[in-house]
Amino acid sequence: MLSFSDITAAYERIRRVVHRTPVLTSVSLDAIAGNALFFKCENFQRVGAFKFRGAYNKLASLTPEERKRGVVAFSSGNHAQGVALAARLLGVSARIVMPTDSPSPKMEATRGYGADVVEYDRIKEDREAIGRRIAEEEGRILVPPFNDEFIMAGQGTIGLEMAEQIGELDCVFFPVGGGGLISGNAVALKHLMPNVRIVGVETERGNDVFLSFRKGEIVTIPVPETIADGMRTTAPGPLTFEVIRKRVDDIVLVSDSEVVDAMRLIYERMKIVVEPTAAVPFAAVLKNDRNLRGRKIGIVLSGGNIDLENFFSLLHKSVR
Amino acid sequence: MLSFSDITAAYERIRRVVHRTPVLTSVSLDAIAGNALFFKCENFQRVGAFKFRGAYNKLASLTPEERKRGVVAFSSGNHAQGVALAARLLGVSARIVMPTDSPSPKMEATRGYGADVVEYDRIKEDREAIGRRIAEEEGRILVPPFNDEFIMAGQGTIGLEMAEQIGELDCVFFPVGGGGLISGNAVALKHLMPNVRIVGVETERGNDVFLSFRKGEIVTIPVPETIADGMRTTAPGPLTFEVIRKRVDDIVLVSDSEVVDAMRLIYERMKIVVEPTAAVPFAAVLKNDRNLRGRKIGIVLSGGNIDLENFFSLLHKSVR
Repeated sequence: MLSFSDITAAYERIRRVVHRTPVLTSVSLDAIAGNALFFKCENFQRVGAFKFRGAYNKLASLTPEERKRGVVAFSSGNHAQGVALAARLLGVSARIVMPTDSPSPKMEATRGYGADVVEYDRIKEDREAIGRRIAEEEGRILVPPFNDEFIMAGQGTIGLEMAEQIGELDCVFFPVGGGGLISGNAVALKHLMPNVRIVGVETERGNDVFLSFRKGEIVTIPVPETIADGMRTTAPGPLTFEVIRKRVDDIVLVSDSEVVDAMRLIYERMKIVVEPTAAVPFAAVLKNDRNLRGRKIGIVLSGGNIDLENFFSLLHKSVR
Repeated sequence: MLSFSDITAAYERIRRVVHRTPVLTSVSLDAIAGNALFFKCENFQRVGAFKFRGAYNKLASLTPEERKRGVVAFSSGNHAQGVALAARLLGVSARIVMPTDSPSPKMEATRGYGADVVEYDRIKEDREAIGRRIAEEEGRILVPPFNDEFIMAGQGTIGLEMAEQIGELDCVFFPVGGGGLISGNAVALKHLMPNVRIVGVETERGNDVFLSFRKGEIVTIPVPETIADGMRTTAPGPLTFEVIRKRVDDIVLVSDSEVVDAMRLIYERMKIVVEPTAAVPFAAVLKNDRNLRGRKIGIVLSGGNIDLENFFSLLHKSVR
């Protein structure tokens, strides 16, 4: 299983290239939440999301021979950009499999980092199969989005920075997609703060990890329709789930509309833009199922990649 | 004239209540600008703008007798909220003179901090006269928006933090309204970094300080129509202008549409929301009249108070 030393080793590899993202606080949000909140702003990370940490750690861990072979990844989101930038920085060739109907800014950004984008038809083709075929035919290394200990360890470096920047916390909330972010950080934080509670949050429709956690084994759901596009995973991975089962204290759910309310509050009070997935843990803190009061709570804002039109239409629809 | 020790004294007064705002960097904006940029994020300051620093310093410097008399200020913008919050924290009664047609969120925020808002008709009445009358009739202390050495010294504490957070800089760009921000910081930064160049930026239509700087004496213009509402001042003050004349290296101009382009880039690449006034110095850095290359440049993002509708409509209009 992933260990603390995997994460400190990852930090040695990535610390000179990642942003040490700031931790923001807001007196008015503390008053609303009834707790002291510490927002770790990975929306300010390179490529606009935490995914760069894991991708860079993975690529920097490849042997010289593997680097020469190049990499391939499949993603319509932040992982694509993370792998593309890491590859460019390390001089590795990258092909990224993306659906033809991906938002054009994401495709452009991925190409902008120098990756070769392989488009596919989301309806007729299976991106994982395409990725594996390219890996096999071209001898490229497949860079999975979450179920990989180098990826998990890279994401876990967020916890190292939070411990240094904030000190002891009572509870830390994470968004959960495939589980790479929460698993790496659960290992990091439980080591550094033995009493911390680690809580993962999903949206009600993207509840694969919630169901798996409750059942004690991996549950697969159909591709969920949720505004939190980082949560359109259908199941945790064997590696991430092993850590989640052992190190995470709870997985809770919020609705899509609670996520939009959380995005708006973050915009209004903190002056920052986060994508829906990133607002999910704050939505859970506002909902406060656990009835916390007067605690020190960490919240990971995982990314800020949402274009202006989407941002506005989401928030505008629900202006009260 | 304002001295460096005024600013360190101000920092002693305010350091426990202000946010030490983060400095953000962006590799992609560095590439676009051809310089290494350091954004000091006062949009994350309490009340969403640097104005809280000066207001708190001013109120914390009042004698016990003066505090009992209460304060009065006139402002339709961030100064109102800065004074209101400082007053609440120090247990001082505050009346704020605001035009009846002020944006309702700003009025609500000012009332939310516990200040008494005195509305007036922008067409028929003179807010300065109303403010002075209230000060006289009620014995309140008038808190001016910029032309006051305690206000200037409070704003200058930004420069102290920048020196600690970034180290030596080649050049620092500020937005200029009445000159409180740039004058305080010119004194702080020229003391800490003797070779730094201090550049103020106004919009073409709000060019009162530009004209005054060129002429060497205070020039008054009619109330300018510019999207940078922090620049709707008609003249610098005698105290701020004295410092600007002696300590500022240049004042340059940008157009309103260059400001909108800068706001959009800040949104897209940095994932933060700034008000138009705050984007003005970055617009000048992009325009790069001085043809800087490979320099370390500081940019003060002065505030983030813009509501979603305005933000969207400004950026949307000019989407390319």
